[in-house]
Amino acid sequence: MNVNIPIEPGRLRKAPENFLDRQAIQTVAAQAKNGRRDFLRGAFTAAASGLAVPVALAQSAGDPNILTLPEHSTGLGQAVATDGYGKPSKYEANVQRRPSPGLTQTRQASVSFAPLQSLFGIVTPSGLHFERHHQGWWDIDPAKHRFMVNGMVKAPRVFSMDELMRLPAVSRFHFIECGANTGMEWGNVAVPTCQYTHGMLSCSEFTGVPLITVLEQCGADLKNGKFVLAEGADGSGMTRTIPMDLIKSGEVLLAYGQNGEMLRPENGYPLRLVVPGVQGVSWIKYLRRIEVGDKPWAAKDEEVHYIDLMPDGQHRQYSSIQECKSVVTTPSGGQVLLDKGFFSISGLAWSGRGKVKRVDVSVDGGRNWRTARLEAPVMSKCLTRFSIDWAWDGKSALIQSRATDETGYVQPTYQQLRAVRGKRSIYHNNAIQTWLVQESGEVKNVHLA
Amino acid sequence: MNVNIPIEPGRLRKAPENFLDRQAIQTVAAQAKNGRRDFLRGAFTAAASGLAVPVALAQSAGDPNILTLPEHSTGLGQAVATDGYGKPSKYEANVQRRPSPGLTQTRQASVSFAPLQSLFGIVTPSGLHFERHHQGWWDIDPAKHRFMVNGMVKAPRVFSMDELMRLPAVSRFHFIECGANTGMEWGNVAVPTCQYTHGMLSCSEFTGVPLITVLEQCGADLKNGKFVLAEGADGSGMTRTIPMDLIKSGEVLLAYGQNGEMLRPENGYPLRLVVPGVQGVSWIKYLRRIEVGDKPWAAKDEEVHYIDLMPDGQHRQYSSIQECKSVVTTPSGGQVLLDKGFFSISGLAWSGRGKVKRVDVSVDGGRNWRTARLEAPVMSKCLTRFSIDWAWDGKSALIQSRATDETGYVQPTYQQLRAVRGKRSIYHNNAIQTWLVQESGEVKNVHLA
Repeated sequence: MNVNIPIEPGRLRKAPENFLDRQAIQTVAAQAKNGRRDFLRGAFTAAASGLAVPVALAQSAGDPNILTLPEHSTGLGQAVATDGYGKPSKYEANVQRRPSPGLTQTRQASVSFAPLQSLFGIVTPSGLHFERHHQGWWDIDPAKHRFMVNGMVKAPRVFSMDELMRLPAVSRFHFIECGANTGMEWGNVAVPTCQYTHGMLSCSEFTGVPLITVLEQCGADLKNGKFVLAEGADGSGMTRTIPMDLIKSGEVLLAYGQNGEMLRPENGYPLRLVVPGVQGVSWIKYLRRIEVGDKPWAAKDEEVHYIDLMPDGQHRQYSSIQECKSVVTTPSGGQVLLDKGFFSISGLAWSGRGKVKRVDVSVDGGRNWRTARLEAPVMSKCLTRFSIDWAWDGKSALIQSRATDETGYVQPTYQQLRAVRGKRSIYHNNAIQTWLVQESGEVKNVHLA
Repeated sequence: MNVNIPIEPGRLRKAPENFLDRQAIQTVAAQAKNGRRDFLRGAFTAAASGLAVPVALAQSAGDPNILTLPEHSTGLGQAVATDGYGKPSKYEANVQRRPSPGLTQTRQASVSFAPLQSLFGIVTPSGLHFERHHQGWWDIDPAKHRFMVNGMVKAPRVFSMDELMRLPAVSRFHFIECGANTGMEWGNVAVPTCQYTHGMLSCSEFTGVPLITVLEQCGADLKNGKFVLAEGADGSGMTRTIPMDLIKSGEVLLAYGQNGEMLRPENGYPLRLVVPGVQGVSWIKYLRRIEVGDKPWAAKDEEVHYIDLMPDGQHRQYSSIQECKSVVTTPSGGQVLLDKGFFSISGLAWSGRGKVKRVDVSVDGGRNWRTARLEAPVMSKCLTRFSIDWAWDGKSALIQSRATDETGYVQPTYQQLRAVRGKRSIYHNNAIQTWLVQESGEVKNVHLA
């Protein structure tokens, strides 16, 4: 390795996590609805006034902390395992998942967004995993939970969790993305941070039993049974159709484990369907039933919701696969570059069709592209972290990333996406995201004409 | 896939997490010190009396929960993001890291063990990551933390965290194991669960700057500078020598990220050295200084502690690499198989020399071996999850795993290990672990003659 990097005095480049409070976000969303495109300026002005001056450099050369030892270098620290389950540092208190800025009517049928701008690598800590509930979340007693297989099977059956957890399990890293992720950007609403543009996205190591194992055990008709219905136990009555071909691949899991421990309650504890590459709504939480059938069920959440309105007024159904997509998370909207010089541009890429093959990055709004480094291992239907070096000259810049997957599919521009899909969709927006770095160093979300 | 598994009525096979309380553990440890080999029987008898009868099957066929809908299927659940950072289910409250059963004099200079018997896959949730402190842990303000490079370098330098976090970073999955892991087993002390035998082991996705990047920036003498000293900022004054060859490989990281978020305070927030394959004591927490030099420093924690006493009375120094090792985590000590029939034997394998190549499993104390499945991706100096099918006939069984790494090194038996190392070591015990499944279904830790 031979890296030669000119470093300017370091400055704050982390997102000021608290730069928009709940009320400010609602104001921003309201202004956006009214078509005002300059609402961000106002938001940033408000934010800047609340920004603490980074104390880091003020003390740099003759830092008293280096000359006189701090308490932690001389004193006795805290004891082990005070509560048996650790927590993040108090200095990270602002790294939080955040509720919808007015997208939903209630906080039970709602979402919270993962703080992508503050995360590293590909694993999403389970405490920061995005949430999407249709009728609130529950903490269900696993000893009482039951899972049933019925329909076109020789031996319908009810399983306890203990029975399921005795079966051969696999563990695999996969992303999950809500079909509505980046949904507000279909119009010209440019929400301020990548937490809100792309934060209905997370990635975990899931552990569970391949659904095909259980279907074979129950004697499912795998020839005529072309589909299954998956049903959740919560009050939303969530049901979704899954094609049997996906299940036969062995990828679809009856999952109970996430990032090494049991699923979290808000993500379906004790049992969730994992459907790699498919939008999150099909990853049924609190899974209680699988029915084998010979045609799609046209359930309410595939007939009325989770459909794509096309320019000709027709709608697209069963468009479940999350196409190839990427986003730069650093620098991204809401962050501030306080000095020019070297920065590492970093972000996430993913595809519901397999592995990410390549990510290109532009700093001039798509005129010139350079190919980014991909962090190994690059796994199928999993987030891939990319990064590329950048020396910021202090002038305004338009940062974009464009991912290509192993099928050869290239992430589209907004112009390309809208030519096919129009502007009236909610779901499946995988267009290239643009972040404007202003001369002030402030980064904002913009839509290029 | 074509799996044909005879399933008996499901029964409890998870570890009864609370089967030993703190006092019971101390009693067990005291008895063990007195040479009593039957102490486990007493422990299990005590535990069994406190075991809840699994309610799962009692309700099986005509389960009223299936006929009458539970509250969670009809009511309104909880709202999103009540605190911005989620927690595990209340039903998982007993999945905890647990303090040392009397290994150390204080709880500041002490350890806590990860509950391996309850974990899946390879990622250790950061809240359950094992702890090892030499003078307690601290939550250090990252804005005030400084990192210095000095010694055989052209331009000594002090970095702020902001400066470090601007540099090109990488993210990699690695295990960390305390050199003293499985230390109590050198004698004939058979501690009851794999949490206590092997729980000073965890695995995370670490993010940080390769140390070589920073050394090159400071103009380190990479020809004559054969070693570096790494120094922590906490009161223990922990210092360790790291060979420059390891650093030149690009593997050694100045890490600030762990499993997607910042390091946890008890694991070195805001900066820790990551030294893949090397025992945990060298992964200096609260890292404040790297000095480049031309010979090892013979610091107290490499000259007095963390040395291996050999049979001839000499001691081995700088034996830092964690050799190839494995352990079956399910079924393991403290768990109870309440019925015969199919079980999936599952465990973890790792090597400080590279990738795990193969894991063999025996259920008859090492007379016959079958090769286990390895979960992909198999990564270098990272945990690898293995599993193998097993139909338990209800008779007593001796379960073992034996790992082989890509160098061809095979994990030794206790007989083989002791022939070279004797019985008086504390560190670097990588022998094959044996779990006895008794006819009662109770699993206990045994040392074969």
